Formats: sequence, C-alpha cells, structure tokens
Amino acid sequence: KSDQGNDKSVSANPLFGFKTTTVLRESAREKNMFIHGKLNDQEAVIIMEKTPIREDTLLELFNCSRLKLEMSNDIYRTYQLQPPAHLNEIKTTVVCPATEKHVKKYLLQETYLVEESGDDYRSITLPYIQSQSFSVQWVYNILEKKAEAERIVFEDPDQAVGFVLLPDFKWDQKQLDDLYLIAIVHRRDIKSLRDLTVQHLPLLNNIRKKAEENILNKYGVAASKLRVYLHYQPSYYHLHVHFTALSFEAPGSGVERAHLLSDVIQNLELDSQYYHSRSLTFPLRSGDGLLSKFKEAGKL
Amino acid sequence: KSDQGNDKSVSANPLFGFKTTTVLRESAREKNMFIHGKLNDQEAVIIMEKTPIREDTLLELFNCSRLKLEMSNDIYRTYQLQPPAHLNEIKTTVVCPATEKHVKKYLLQETYLVEESGDDYRSITLPYIQSQSFSVQWVYNILEKKAEAERIVFEDPDQAVGFVLLPDFKWDQKQLDDLYLIAIVHRRDIKSLRDLTVQHLPLLNNIRKKAEENILNKYGVAASKLRVYLHYQPSYYHLHVHFTALSFEAPGSGVERAHLLSDVIQNLELDSQYYHSRSLTFPLRSGDGLLSKFKEAGKL
Repeated sequence: KSDQGNDKSVSANPLFGFKTTTVLRESAREKNMFIHGKLNDQEAVIIMEKTPIREDTLLELFNCSRLKLEMSNDIYRTYQLQPPAHLNEIKTTVVCPATEKHVKKYLLQETYLVEESGDDYRSITLPYIQSQSFSVQWVYNILEKKAEAERIVFEDPDQAVGFVLLPDFKWDQKQLDDLYLIAIVHRRDIKSLRDLTVQHLPLLNNIRKKAEENILNKYGVAASKLRVYLHYQPSYYHLHVHFTALSFEAPGSGVERAHLLSDVIQNLELDSQYYHSRSLTFPLRSGDGLLSKFKEAGKL
Repeated sequence: KSDQGNDKSVSANPLFGFKTTTVLRESAREKNMFIHGKLNDQEAVIIMEKTPIREDTLLELFNCSRLKLEMSNDIYRTYQLQPPAHLNEIKTTVVCPATEKHVKKYLLQETYLVEESGDDYRSITLPYIQSQSFSVQWVYNILEKKAEAERIVFEDPDQAVGFVLLPDFKWDQKQLDDLYLIAIVHRRDIKSLRDLTVQHLPLLNNIRKKAEENILNKYGVAASKLRVYLHYQPSYYHLHVHFTALSFEAPGSGVERAHLLSDVIQNLELDSQYYHSRSLTFPLRSGDGLLSKFKEAGKL
C-alpha cells in the first residue's frame, strides 16, 4: 500500500525546515495557499492545493476513515472525517530559488468594502477619476473601428442609443460555458452607473433587447441563460454592459460589484435620481488610489 | 493528540457500509462532492468538502508530512504531499433519512434565469411555496435552543427585532478566510425579501448593527471585510441574512441571487412597496418545481 511508507519514491522530506515568511494568497474556497519563505537559506515560493475528491475512492473513503461527530440536528449530522492518507494528498509546487517577481506574482492585495454615498461620489470619487484622466483611447479605437473591428459581433450605430457588442478579452470563444461579451455604448458622456437617469432608459432597453437577440442568433444562448450587468466601480469610465453565461461564475459577478441591468432599469423607472443619490457599496484593493482618498476623507 | 485514536468523541465509523447510488454533483475547483446512497437501508445524502489549508498548521505540515516527487524542471518541482491526518480533514455532512427533495436539491441541473414580477410572486411563487409546506422545524429548533444552542455566537432575544447569529453549516470555523455566519430572525412571519416593508427597517438595521459589532468583537473581522446579503429565492422561507468574508467567493454570493442588506435597507427607505412590486431575477434549476410553475404559466 502506498501509505505504508515502503514506497521507494517517497524521499526524505525535502520541505523539512522550510521557514514561512508570509502567506501571499490563499483561497478557502479552492483550498489552496501560496507561501513565501526560505528553504535551505534560499528564497522559495510553495503552492499547495488540496486534490479533488475522486469518485473511484469513495468505497475506501467511507469504510476506512475515522470520523468525529461535530453537530447533530434533526436529520442533519456533520463530522470531521480523517481519510486514509493516500486518498487525501496535497498537490505541492515548489519554486526555488524564487525571485522577487515570483513573489509579487502570487501576492494578493487586501480588499476593503467601501460604502460611497452620492455626496462621497461627488466630493471624493469624481475628482479622483478626473485627476487620474484614465485613458479610454482603446475604447474609442474600438468604436471608431481603428482596432478590434474584426471582433465586433454586432453594432447599432445610432449615436444616442447605439452600441458595439464584442467578446471580452477573457473569453477565448472556444466554448460557450464561459461566454463573456461586452456592449460598449457609442455615447461618450456616461462615465458609469452614477451618471444614469431616466433619460438613458431608451439606451439601456435598446442594449438589453438587441444584445440578447444577437447572442441568441449567433451563439444560441437564450436570455434566460445570461447574466447581464454593469460594474461599479467599473474598470474603465465609459459605460459598458457585461453579458456572461449564467453557468459561469465570472470574476466580478459577485453582488458586491455587479448590478443587474434589469434592476438598473427598474430603479431608474422608480426614481430618475436613484443612482445620483443612493449609497453604493464596492470593493477596493489596498493599492488602489481611490481607497487612499476614502481613508484621507475619514470614510473607512 | 487528536490523531492518535484515543479521543473519546471519535465514534465507531457511522458511514461504514454506505452504498453509493450516484454522485449528484462535484466540484474539482472547490474539492467537494455530493453523494446519494443508502446508509443502513435508509436513503441518505452525504456532502464532503475538503477543509481549507490553515496558516497556523504550516510548520507541522512542512515538518511532519510525507512527500513524493512528481516532477522536476529547472527551479520548479511538484510533489504529492501526505499530511498528518488531523491536518487534512474532510468536512462531512450527512442527511439521513433524505427525501426526494434533498436529492434533487443537490443534483446538478441546468439553471435558468427567471424574472418574477410582483404579480408573478403572488399568482405563481407564493401558492407554490404554500403548497409545498417546506419544513422549517430545524430553524425553530435553533430559535428555541432545542438544537445547536452551543453554536450560537450571539442572540438578541427581542421578538420583534431580535435574531440569533450562528456559523453556517458550510463553515468549519477553523480559519477566518471563509467566515460564514447566518442571522436568523425570531419573527416567524417573514418568508423572504418579498415580505419586507418599511415596518421591518428596525429589524434589518438591528441585525446589521449588532451582527457586525459581534463579528468584530468575536472574530476581529470589520464590517469593511464583510459581504452582508439576503438570498432570493432563499433556500428556506424564514427570513435570514448571510455574513461572509469579502475575500471568500461564497457560493450564492453572485448578483443573480444575492441582495446586499445595505441595498435592501435603502430600497425600503425609498419605497416601502419596493419588494412587493418590483421584478426580481433569480436562477432556478431544471428540476425545481417552481420552474415548472413558471413554464406552465408561460413565463419562460
């Protein structure tokens, strides 16, 4: 048996004495951890990730594990289960010697949730956006067909309610499971959700209707299979709408950053000033200049 | 040491002889598996999920594991690492006896996005919920301290605005990275978001304030690190609020199902009938009885 210690390929422990400097990143959901430290006086990065549960090991898992009861309520019980060691390995990657670049690559920056009132937007966020003069030249290049023209899936050229629909960079278009398209509006005067009022309803309804029609025609994906949303904060300040496959947990589709287009439309129908006055919650990374502005203003 | 077999709470293996019928669902990304089968001739569902890697166990993990070299190339090496058993448990939940409904709940099925108007709620969803008479006895057990009393983190016993705060089943409480708590209200007359009006603002504000205070005091996690939200549809029709670590992409925290408590409060302040009248979008699995009702009504 491979867990009895007589397997020749099991070496003396090469990680013995590893000294952790810091945990660069970890994911409780994915059960992995990226660790920076020293191995035999050399800089090293160790990446550990638990292995998936395998169906072909279930019989042994149920019959040969040790269990400890944690909780019992009605028909529900929870246990801590200790499986045979060879059924529960951790995939471990060692980078050694590691450079500064390896360390930075795996470092995750801390994220904070910020609650921005309408006044905060006008006194903190808007001046910051304007001072940064983030370039959206690449967006204009798309709208003017100076770049990526061949990637455009659909265009409504109307300058008031029109838009361009194209695949997001993150989608390789090889399978529909992670379908990801972006609609970019032709109008250049809407920075984000914050600028939307009832006057933009024709634009939003037009995007919704025509993009959904075209995604159905071109990809065979129905509206009931699409998550359609805006980001706040967006990653660039020119209004755009995200279309992702419902079955795909797209990065940025969490409730803390995404706003369903159907909700946005209804909110504007209810109150034209909804996004002008309302507090909006969003995450900011610790290195983000906007986070510093909120801290300076005593808002965090 | 807990892995030496002399711990009194380790029982004879209660899963011995479990016969797998089928794997309902699995995630290689999340390292979990949902299994339907028979335990002592009763229908059962077993949910297994590997535990996150804990920073406070790294020293023991590096010094006391067995490693097998898989690959070596330049500065990169990969190993299969077998850790001490007590550092590598599988969180196991057993539902037994399980009904058809439990089995369906965990079966991976195609998902559709449904848009439910206020009228749809009253003519389709509400009658369906009532006809199903989903049991929330386990919730009442918690509120009455008949079960899980020792797990309660905080309680405000007020019958109008009070609630009980406790860790969600899915969180093993061993690390803060995937912190997940639930606030369950004492009131028994609020099924979901749909029932909320301006009269419930004291309840919602009380939950937000006291739960956040207690999570800060007990776990040292600040409000700016918490995603606080309700589900619609919820998995049980007794009002509850989710608190998850912002850094943890908790299942169910996507924009298609989650509603930030801060948004809910503001929406009710704006319009007491907001959740009564507004169209709400949510995903339903193909096996879900409610989806059939929407199809029968020609809404999909």
